[in-house]
Amino acid sequence: MELMSDFRSYAPDLGLEKSTITLSPFESHHLVGTNRAKQGNEVILFNGTGLEWKARLEKADKRRCVLIKKEAFHYNRPTKNITLAIALIKGKTFDSILRQATELGIARIQPLTTQWTQVQIKNAESKCKKWQMQLVEACKQSGNPWLPILSDPKKLDQLLEEDPIETAVVASLESKAKNWSDLKLSRAVTLFIGPEGDFTPDEYQLLIESGAQPVSLGPHVLRSETAAVSALSVLSESINQIGD
Amino acid sequence: MELMSDFRSYAPDLGLEKSTITLSPFESHHLVGTNRAKQGNEVILFNGTGLEWKARLEKADKRRCVLIKKEAFHYNRPTKNITLAIALIKGKTFDSILRQATELGIARIQPLTTQWTQVQIKNAESKCKKWQMQLVEACKQSGNPWLPILSDPKKLDQLLEEDPIETAVVASLESKAKNWSDLKLSRAVTLFIGPEGDFTPDEYQLLIESGAQPVSLGPHVLRSETAAVSALSVLSESINQIGD
Repeated sequence: MELMSDFRSYAPDLGLEKSTITLSPFESHHLVGTNRAKQGNEVILFNGTGLEWKARLEKADKRRCVLIKKEAFHYNRPTKNITLAIALIKGKTFDSILRQATELGIARIQPLTTQWTQVQIKNAESKCKKWQMQLVEACKQSGNPWLPILSDPKKLDQLLEEDPIETAVVASLESKAKNWSDLKLSRAVTLFIGPEGDFTPDEYQLLIESGAQPVSLGPHVLRSETAAVSALSVLSESINQIGD
Repeated sequence: MELMSDFRSYAPDLGLEKSTITLSPFESHHLVGTNRAKQGNEVILFNGTGLEWKARLEKADKRRCVLIKKEAFHYNRPTKNITLAIALIKGKTFDSILRQATELGIARIQPLTTQWTQVQIKNAESKCKKWQMQLVEACKQSGNPWLPILSDPKKLDQLLEEDPIETAVVASLESKAKNWSDLKLSRAVTLFIGPEGDFTPDEYQLLIESGAQPVSLGPHVLRSETAAVSALSVLSESINQIGD
């Protein structure tokens, strides 16, 4: 079940014990300026960790909207926990992948830099802020009450050294890549997707040695956005079939 | 196995019995003008129906490239036959879906108009020509030797009246939608994806009465491009699991 309304706003400090909330200037502007919500309209507020309010817009102010709770709803935590560890890509494609991954309900995004990554992050903080906005926007549009966690970009080798991976899968064009049905999966999986020029042979080896299982995404060379959405979807369905 | 080279060109009139080929002006310009291939370079030619040549660029002419066969390779016809019947979408998103569907190896694309389709096709012939170019381009980039068949856009009700569907699946947000594992699939499946405003209840009913099985793509509302790529990927993997 899902609370439906034409308006959705992100309110991270929503609490079960509260009865009114004031939106951030950004969310206020989006709700009233862009989406033209009026006083008295019903708005769905979500905090990104499974709590939603059906609320009434009491003060329609472009910088400081105030809303009153009518009803609260708490979603169960998803039974799948998928992390997308994906090499940075130039331009708007990366934004688009973030949005699509959010629609598909993944738990965490780990941007990667690799040997063949062509993107340099000059201002990581402003980049992450921009990405965060894409995630929030995708939650609004898709009705996903769980905002994915956005981790700071990391070098692949550094990540593998610092964070031991549990169940992990890497999309691979190599001949040793397995079929989905031959993988050993659990409910918490990290999916690695390489850059446009793919991971280097050294990086593949490092991933495999760290426990990642190479999976084939079919006979053709997929672009990163196709690879990410395709692999996330089949992974999610494969986890469904594990049962409880 | 796949013939690899940095250059790929589309040559629909490639034949097993021939030994030289002249490219179209468009393909000649793309190969020599855009991709800067030089005389003597190795080029992979594909005819879109599973035949490839490894060829030598003999005459690097921007309007009329001539190539000589060095080796021919014929791919087995794919064992899956997926048709994507998808409602038209505004702007470049539809182009992007065509490309991604081609990367994923689908057999046919059937553009649909529906009650809530916001796109009007004024010049169907020029549109189809533009779409065809997207398919060829995606074949080149992904190394897919099979060019999807692009059918003329049709109204959904007209399509269902004229072409009886065999196995079909429709992405659905309705509560009656099934899980992938509960569908009855075969190796030839048509996948229906609605417009941004979804199919109307009447259209859903018509699809179901025509034999399409409603499938849920998860708890969130997916945009068309996410729905198409996600559903095609899971469908393809589900067909793999049918076995032979």
